[in-house]
Amino acid sequence: MNNTNPIGIFDSGIGGLTVVKKISSILPSENIVYFGDTARVPYGTKSNDTVIEYALQDAAYLLTHNVKLIIVACNTASSIALPALKDKFDVPVIGMIEPGAKLAVEKSVGGKIGVIGTNATINNKAYSNELIKHGNNLSVYEKACPLFVPLAEEGWIEHTATKLIADEYLHELKEQEIDTLILGCTHYPILSSVIQSSVGEQVELIDSGVAASLVVKDYLENQNLLNTQTGNGKIDFYVSDLSAKFKEIAERFLGQSINEIKKIDVDELVKLI
Amino acid sequence: MNNTNPIGIFDSGIGGLTVVKKISSILPSENIVYFGDTARVPYGTKSNDTVIEYALQDAAYLLTHNVKLIIVACNTASSIALPALKDKFDVPVIGMIEPGAKLAVEKSVGGKIGVIGTNATINNKAYSNELIKHGNNLSVYEKACPLFVPLAEEGWIEHTATKLIADEYLHELKEQEIDTLILGCTHYPILSSVIQSSVGEQVELIDSGVAASLVVKDYLENQNLLNTQTGNGKIDFYVSDLSAKFKEIAERFLGQSINEIKKIDVDELVKLI
Repeated sequence: MNNTNPIGIFDSGIGGLTVVKKISSILPSENIVYFGDTARVPYGTKSNDTVIEYALQDAAYLLTHNVKLIIVACNTASSIALPALKDKFDVPVIGMIEPGAKLAVEKSVGGKIGVIGTNATINNKAYSNELIKHGNNLSVYEKACPLFVPLAEEGWIEHTATKLIADEYLHELKEQEIDTLILGCTHYPILSSVIQSSVGEQVELIDSGVAASLVVKDYLENQNLLNTQTGNGKIDFYVSDLSAKFKEIAERFLGQSINEIKKIDVDELVKLI
Repeated sequence: MNNTNPIGIFDSGIGGLTVVKKISSILPSENIVYFGDTARVPYGTKSNDTVIEYALQDAAYLLTHNVKLIIVACNTASSIALPALKDKFDVPVIGMIEPGAKLAVEKSVGGKIGVIGTNATINNKAYSNELIKHGNNLSVYEKACPLFVPLAEEGWIEHTATKLIADEYLHELKEQEIDTLILGCTHYPILSSVIQSSVGEQVELIDSGVAASLVVKDYLENQNLLNTQTGNGKIDFYVSDLSAKFKEIAERFLGQSINEIKKIDVDELVKLI
């Protein structure tokens, strides 16, 4: 493996771009290939078998770009498909759950940790099963917040309705006096200020995208695989369906403009596995 | 074609069940086969080519059940794929747009008609292009309301946040003093009371599912294809992916309990066209 090979990042759609933003901030010299499976988004409402099948195809697509490492920038796919991905492919595969849970345990002072995510991530107890490995002194409180994804995509960041919805979803976690809250969906960092305001300023928010980026940095350093080029790496964007609103939302999530987004065919994806 | 053959109804997912509810209320003796493409929902964020491809597969699947007529219970698919469906298949195909627009024109007193729907339906100007055929004395005001679908699925019918969101989406239509409002998405009848309250009681809401049911009734009567069995027809439910929450939401949308939902494979769908 060559250190100039890109990092591959996939997501069910657009949320993983918040992870691209963190990776390119923490590791600015790395080249990145992003694949968003926008033809089949969302994964969070689909069955486990379907999510595993799609995730294997997504990873196989990234490997056609000779990626040196794959980040599963989707909590649903991380919580369901990571064992199948690690089993199938030789390159390292890094999900959201393990890094996010580890960082939450490090940051938590009182051991009262909240987790929010899609229905699939919460129903699978993805984070609580991971957190439990870090000892018995933790109390974990979980809550599915399915309206946060469409609110983030609609860009209603400062809207009163968003605050009311956040208060409704988060009041139980607040009453439990959590000290740390894992944002268990890659869309949620877009809403971090309203989430922070609902749970209180004393609560430490954990962005799994940041946690995963730190794990990737450690790995590449240890394996001597950091890209040593001067200047910023390039980012290539691929999607399985290109809708009218994608570019606008993508640029908001990424925090920068995008020159080109290439569409690839779902029929081609299906043939890869 | 035999009059005992079922009516086929498809949707990108779950919203079409509000149409099943209307059809089985207006034509209780009819047998119905419902297909929800839950593995590939939503269609409203996808490109036109993808929506056409999926709609052709969905209709082809219904035809394996020998349906006597197909209802496209999805405004996005109706607005994009109806010509392709009518071109490809011999059975009558009835969408949401034409019946909904026709009923709105009949009901509108002052000719000021509002239309709400997903981004895809509104961007395609599906209803305004149809309404324009009914004369030049109409003023049409359109607004995409993408948060209504997740709110309906979450079941937040009476929530203050839902009212705030409805007020935000609908205040322009209210200021234009519309007298008629087309609910241009099959999810929206679930939120009809909050929508009515936002636009005012004087506005006539048009449920395209009701409008389409009346068209279907007329057609079957004229063709002597009404099912004359005594008692209620049976309804068979098929989906392309069965998630944990589907049954709960489906029963809320349908307004009755469901005994069995059968899952069919997307791989099988793809082979049909």
